[in-house]
Amino acid sequence: MLEEFSEKVSYLGPETSFTHQAAMKMFPKAQLVSMPGIPEVFKSVENSSVKFGVVPVENSTEGSVGVTLDFLLESGVKIVCETSLDIKHALLSEFKIEEIEKVFSHPQALAQCRNWIASNIPKAELVSVSSTSMAAELASKEQKSAAIASLMTAEKFGLKVLAENIQDFSFNKTRFLVLSLSEIPNAKKNKTTIAFSTMHKAGALFNCIKAFKVYDINLTKIESRPSKKNAWEYVFFVDFEGDAQHSNSQKALEELKENCIFFKTIGSFPVIQ
Amino acid sequence: MLEEFSEKVSYLGPETSFTHQAAMKMFPKAQLVSMPGIPEVFKSVENSSVKFGVVPVENSTEGSVGVTLDFLLESGVKIVCETSLDIKHALLSEFKIEEIEKVFSHPQALAQCRNWIASNIPKAELVSVSSTSMAAELASKEQKSAAIASLMTAEKFGLKVLAENIQDFSFNKTRFLVLSLSEIPNAKKNKTTIAFSTMHKAGALFNCIKAFKVYDINLTKIESRPSKKNAWEYVFFVDFEGDAQHSNSQKALEELKENCIFFKTIGSFPVIQ
Repeated sequence: MLEEFSEKVSYLGPETSFTHQAAMKMFPKAQLVSMPGIPEVFKSVENSSVKFGVVPVENSTEGSVGVTLDFLLESGVKIVCETSLDIKHALLSEFKIEEIEKVFSHPQALAQCRNWIASNIPKAELVSVSSTSMAAELASKEQKSAAIASLMTAEKFGLKVLAENIQDFSFNKTRFLVLSLSEIPNAKKNKTTIAFSTMHKAGALFNCIKAFKVYDINLTKIESRPSKKNAWEYVFFVDFEGDAQHSNSQKALEELKENCIFFKTIGSFPVIQ
Repeated sequence: MLEEFSEKVSYLGPETSFTHQAAMKMFPKAQLVSMPGIPEVFKSVENSSVKFGVVPVENSTEGSVGVTLDFLLESGVKIVCETSLDIKHALLSEFKIEEIEKVFSHPQALAQCRNWIASNIPKAELVSVSSTSMAAELASKEQKSAAIASLMTAEKFGLKVLAENIQDFSFNKTRFLVLSLSEIPNAKKNKTTIAFSTMHKAGALFNCIKAFKVYDINLTKIESRPSKKNAWEYVFFVDFEGDAQHSNSQKALEELKENCIFFKTIGSFPVIQ
């Protein structure tokens, strides 16, 4: 479906980031273009300098990526595909484990390996940097330091792998979205993401999600984000199983809209395992 | 209620942080103790080395503080009070605004002032550090640099205020929670926080929140967090108006529990304006 696409695809970089790995998995023949931030991925899709963009949307232990949700709301791009990757961290260094005095990594990676660090390198100073790639670069330059990053990053910076699979939760996964201005032709869409706001009164959210119950549609995710219009007002992001164009989904969404002050379909799309 | 309390209260530091300011507002006579992180505030309350702890839980533009929600779930402490503060940022420096080449701040503060920075100091390099207090310290030492932080931080580090109220959203507020092992005697509790998990089937969340509709109870917040037990399973945090001991709340929570596989009351508490 996406495997044969050979043009440009942007992703949240730097090179060897987990989003890069997700982009390589889905687009093995494309020209992958690294972007410094999530806003830049959205912009590159919006202004058609790339056909597709890849961003992270949720980690199974750390939760949603707020910036991605905020841009899905504001931007004109659609979600056209989703995939997920197992997130496995490794300790990388040019030194021996007992020599390590300092460990560089992204704050999320440090958080995901908290117990392993406490058990294995309890005295090491932990330094948060902006990416695991940056961490590996620093570890390759500084004496008695290490990085927590992926095996792919180890290869790029020529670091040894001192320990593998050091994340505390065995089911550490991240979901990634493919963004585009137009849907993938003939794709079997089995998931939909919508966003809506309810009136601020008792039972408002209940009335909104009642429609899914009535039409027996399974919600896989509900998440609230600040509306950024008034303090303590929210936009709800809902993922459900099925295509928004199916008859049952259409009926449910029509009922939902009657109880909303804002509604947006962000995309119906296939999920690639 | 809390004003006369004169013993120890821990807060998310460092000194002059917004949580410090929230703690000073609620506990003007207490001995305030700075903690390096949110987990340390919870631990200091759990092991009774302080009577109360103060942590941030939600910002009106950036959303919930995930670490606070995760610890509310795992810890034995209760929420016993809530307050909110207007979050106002200022540009602080020893130099003139046209001389500024580098700006230090916490990443959330940089995000909250993104538009002002782009309009007023577009060429400045932005450097993320772990607190606005750390940012001010660095700005007081480095040539041609500035910090984005509060007015209180300016006083502490002897920096000039180059611009005030530079946050992009006029309604930028943060909610803070007071944590304790025991409730405040005779407090009028007008808000409750609960957490629950539903079965993974169509209509499960609907069945859980139906009870609030039936008993005409207003939900002020619903938020999902990863369960950390299995990938893509969630715990819902719900805030509602009223005391969990009121007759209507008790009935609603009894009905809710019948549809949950996990349920916890995290506290009923007064809201201090």
